[in-house]
Amino acid sequence: MLKYQQIANEIESYIERHHIQQGEKLPVLESLIKEFDTSKSTIVKALDVLEKKGLIFQVRGSGIFVRRKKRKNYINLLSNQGFQKDLEKFDITSEVLQLEVHKPSEIVAQQLHIDRDQDVYYVKRIRYIEGEILCLEESYYNKAVVPYLNKEIATTSIFQYIEDGLSLKVGFSDMYLQIGKLTDKEASYLKLNSGDPKLTMESIFYLTNGTPFDYSTVIYNYNQAQFYILGTGI
Amino acid sequence: MLKYQQIANEIESYIERHHIQQGEKLPVLESLIKEFDTSKSTIVKALDVLEKKGLIFQVRGSGIFVRRKKRKNYINLLSNQGFQKDLEKFDITSEVLQLEVHKPSEIVAQQLHIDRDQDVYYVKRIRYIEGEILCLEESYYNKAVVPYLNKEIATTSIFQYIEDGLSLKVGFSDMYLQIGKLTDKEASYLKLNSGDPKLTMESIFYLTNGTPFDYSTVIYNYNQAQFYILGTGI
Repeated sequence: MLKYQQIANEIESYIERHHIQQGEKLPVLESLIKEFDTSKSTIVKALDVLEKKGLIFQVRGSGIFVRRKKRKNYINLLSNQGFQKDLEKFDITSEVLQLEVHKPSEIVAQQLHIDRDQDVYYVKRIRYIEGEILCLEESYYNKAVVPYLNKEIATTSIFQYIEDGLSLKVGFSDMYLQIGKLTDKEASYLKLNSGDPKLTMESIFYLTNGTPFDYSTVIYNYNQAQFYILGTGI
Repeated sequence: MLKYQQIANEIESYIERHHIQQGEKLPVLESLIKEFDTSKSTIVKALDVLEKKGLIFQVRGSGIFVRRKKRKNYINLLSNQGFQKDLEKFDITSEVLQLEVHKPSEIVAQQLHIDRDQDVYYVKRIRYIEGEILCLEESYYNKAVVPYLNKEIATTSIFQYIEDGLSLKVGFSDMYLQIGKLTDKEASYLKLNSGDPKLTMESIFYLTNGTPFDYSTVIYNYNQAQFYILGTGI
């Protein structure tokens, strides 16, 4: 982990430990440099990370203020880390329904920018939050990027494996949201009724170098799906 | 408008005009400096704006690549500009059902960080996209920040009025999403059936100085609500 990222994590812990509330001021730059025993440029970079994450906002000439106002039981929609990492405070488990290597459909090949004769890992999972069904997920991983997956990895966190096991860096994502009604089949997976509300989220995840590696479609249980987004403005 | 924001807009037009596709490279920095006849620092700042907007991504040592892959009829969920500005390509209209000044409820006062004896503008609107009902919106504006609103403003774009008319700068927002079933009353506003799917989005909008000025609850028509998010990673 880079120094400024480590310091960013430390400042995040500091905010929690000191119960600094939304709208309250952080110590001035000089105090932070002293407190975290690091250089000005590292602190400035760390603060930029925290601003991007929506944890703080900086007002020129006025100070650094704490922003995050999480709501209990809401999931961060913008975390590119997959659930596992973001939901550290939630208990997330997965049941793997299917895990296989095959050739992609036209749509999948297109989303992953690959040819139809290249291999993809197809993973179908039910994901649970605190023991309740959260969503049905179908993911396609470009096998050229993610050469190996097994049931054990898919049962825990695929993204953590990608970052820690394969040393790849998840960069950004495109997400598409739609609301609709559950089909019979979807309802049976989620143990809901046909016609009940659903949120469908399609995501394409990219490495920092711009390579798409994961195309996934997730259908959420409307009883469990509550999301927050900390928009960082334009 | 600041110089680098203007250049950012120009680069955005440039990308569209030259039909630069997702994953394709932008000209190198030196060419951009020449093309837009400006300084290196302005170009660098402009590129940062475009990266934040999810339009490009920069790979160190490799170049600047175009990112945006809009889907037709999907709405940008992360625009803090209100719909009007983001949906330039959509025809958005509003029907004002109610517009009045009153004292806030406990919840509204809390979200806007004001006392219960301060005034808020309450605006209730039906918003249409291409003539179809998009959503039912109830918004509360802190009157100390937005001292005047009228039906004409509320029929067009309140955010544009706030930025252009009041010269305030919209900074960031907190958003909370939930999926559920429409009540009888909500269904009648949206001309849907009771029990149909709904997406409820609560937002708190802040000025760049951190002052919350708008707390709104929007209930979307599931037939019209399709969103995209260009996540910019962490």
